[in-house]
Amino acid sequence: MTTSARTRGTVRVVGTGLLGASIGLGLCARGVDVVLADPSPSALALARDLGAGRLPTAQEPAPALVVVAAPPDVTAEVVALELATWPTAVVTDVASVKAGPLARVAEAGGDLRRYVPGHPMAGRERSGAVAARGDLFVGRPWVLAEPAAAGAATALDVVTDLTLDLGAVPVVLDAAAHDEAVALVSHLPQVAASLVAARLRDAPAGAVDLAGQGLRDVTRIAASDPALWVQILGANAGPVLGALRAMRDDLDDVVGALEALAVEDAAGAPGARATLARAIAAGNAGQARIPGKHGSAPTRYAAVTVVVPDRPGELGRLFSDMGETGVNLEDLHLEHSPGQPVGLAELSVLPAARELLESELRARGWTVHG
Amino acid sequence: MTTSARTRGTVRVVGTGLLGASIGLGLCARGVDVVLADPSPSALALARDLGAGRLPTAQEPAPALVVVAAPPDVTAEVVALELATWPTAVVTDVASVKAGPLARVAEAGGDLRRYVPGHPMAGRERSGAVAARGDLFVGRPWVLAEPAAAGAATALDVVTDLTLDLGAVPVVLDAAAHDEAVALVSHLPQVAASLVAARLRDAPAGAVDLAGQGLRDVTRIAASDPALWVQILGANAGPVLGALRAMRDDLDDVVGALEALAVEDAAGAPGARATLARAIAAGNAGQARIPGKHGSAPTRYAAVTVVVPDRPGELGRLFSDMGETGVNLEDLHLEHSPGQPVGLAELSVLPAARELLESELRARGWTVHG
Repeated sequence: MTTSARTRGTVRVVGTGLLGASIGLGLCARGVDVVLADPSPSALALARDLGAGRLPTAQEPAPALVVVAAPPDVTAEVVALELATWPTAVVTDVASVKAGPLARVAEAGGDLRRYVPGHPMAGRERSGAVAARGDLFVGRPWVLAEPAAAGAATALDVVTDLTLDLGAVPVVLDAAAHDEAVALVSHLPQVAASLVAARLRDAPAGAVDLAGQGLRDVTRIAASDPALWVQILGANAGPVLGALRAMRDDLDDVVGALEALAVEDAAGAPGARATLARAIAAGNAGQARIPGKHGSAPTRYAAVTVVVPDRPGELGRLFSDMGETGVNLEDLHLEHSPGQPVGLAELSVLPAARELLESELRARGWTVHG
Repeated sequence: MTTSARTRGTVRVVGTGLLGASIGLGLCARGVDVVLADPSPSALALARDLGAGRLPTAQEPAPALVVVAAPPDVTAEVVALELATWPTAVVTDVASVKAGPLARVAEAGGDLRRYVPGHPMAGRERSGAVAARGDLFVGRPWVLAEPAAAGAATALDVVTDLTLDLGAVPVVLDAAAHDEAVALVSHLPQVAASLVAARLRDAPAGAVDLAGQGLRDVTRIAASDPALWVQILGANAGPVLGALRAMRDDLDDVVGALEALAVEDAAGAPGARATLARAIAAGNAGQARIPGKHGSAPTRYAAVTVVVPDRPGELGRLFSDMGETGVNLEDLHLEHSPGQPVGLAELSVLPAARELLESELRARGWTVHG
């Protein structure tokens, strides 16, 4: 099979869950020879049947690259074992925490010139090889830890090629900086979403019936797998603790302000109101820093809201009409409509395209709100 | 002008911000006579120009219904004034907290047989009349507080008709139960989103560059207006305090567990891991209670993921093709693709429709993942 891939030689993927199987699928699609390994024979066979790679032969030659996609709590041990077993191979991993495993591989005497800790910023709420897909990493950042040893530059090149073959965007980052970053952008939001959702467990039915899109957005990732998150949070305990303690301090301020307002009359406790305002304003400032689509600085898109009857084909008709206008859709938000046969589609477009889109959609009979 | 509305007589709307102007626009569209009032002459003129209603005449007759859409912290005073000024009119309001204003209106001697506290569960991240739209309330729950006085049933009917004219779904709820409910489904998520986003304010640029869809979803509502939220949180201090203290207790448990894990080795602190697992699992259970579209019990839709090149018209082509299949789209989620010219559209459909949709889209050349 010919290959258009940058990756040379055989890639050994150890662990055939969502990430390992997705890596295998993506590499096989590029013509790379992928050999699979997994302590579970049935998981291994499933990944093979899904097309994520082949089983090793009796006389399997040494791989050029080993990707350890084992559960986070055993990653370091598996990496150390693979480094020792294949003394010429480059080894990388996909665990979502980097400093701890790197230290443990070093303690175990692993050859750090051949080990490049990695973390693809991709995942799904579902797990296992059945949820795998070869394009899981397309367009996603894939963090590679800065070489911890002199002479690791070649290994970094090899793993960089792997990420490019999978369509990812390689980002080289110090391991500790990575762990601090994911504590803020991934682990803290996960904990917050879970804590908010947990409050709904015992809420009256009439209360959850009032749920709107804000609550749905805040709690979407609260559906994530507890077993996986115990490992992730535990492995990144230090940075996550820092983020959670800072959040708790801010939360204490808000609680204190509300306690003052709950006992004072409406005119009292002016300092309390300032505390609340600062908390919300700080959120404004932080939220504004989140990059927009394509990794660019946040763009202020114009929103065009269209009323969509909830019938088969209506959204299709809308997007077909939109396609005819030639305006590019930057983002889309559907608003749910409990109990009513109508929905709202909020189309985000570049501000310059807004007027054109509105007039063209109106001309095609749509009810449009700027 | 003929009217298809249930609402009879003139409606006086006091306060012409987002909600007041949207109510005016919606009622005018149904042919109802709307007279506007606002302490700001320029805000009043703007709402009039936008078509939200007319200005009062010199000899303005008594309205049948007064809708107080003033800022939350003056709602009770304005309601009491309107009840006194128009001794035959029914009065309602739209403030997002109900028990406190109701008590203050009663203290002020307001006629509770004619006052129906209300709260439309609708809003936008933008404010003011320029963001108003007549269909803002379509399909949204609109809470009406249970009559606080004997003889208020007629008033409740009048305000129920108003909500139906605006396409909303009236929900009658005890005022205190309403305040507890919105503390959980609206005020708690707002505070949590703001606290998470606030941690990003001083994060390194390299950290926020790793932001994914999870963080975007959790922090979207952190863009909300601080001045408005100071009023809302302050007015509902008691119920919000209850929710925040319960969240803080859970947060303390998570912090304690991570402190144990940060000092123990990987094998230690088994109780800590159980605490983390319980926190995430409690979030699973709470999240699963959030109703799906149309106010129904949460439905488990099947997700079909389609790779969409980021070119004008491609989403339009996808939805046009989807419309031809006759399959109804229940929800849609676009995944952003930093740095890459491709996106993923996750289409949620009824499980029974999944296979048909997948095969039809593949037949039309789309790359589809189940």
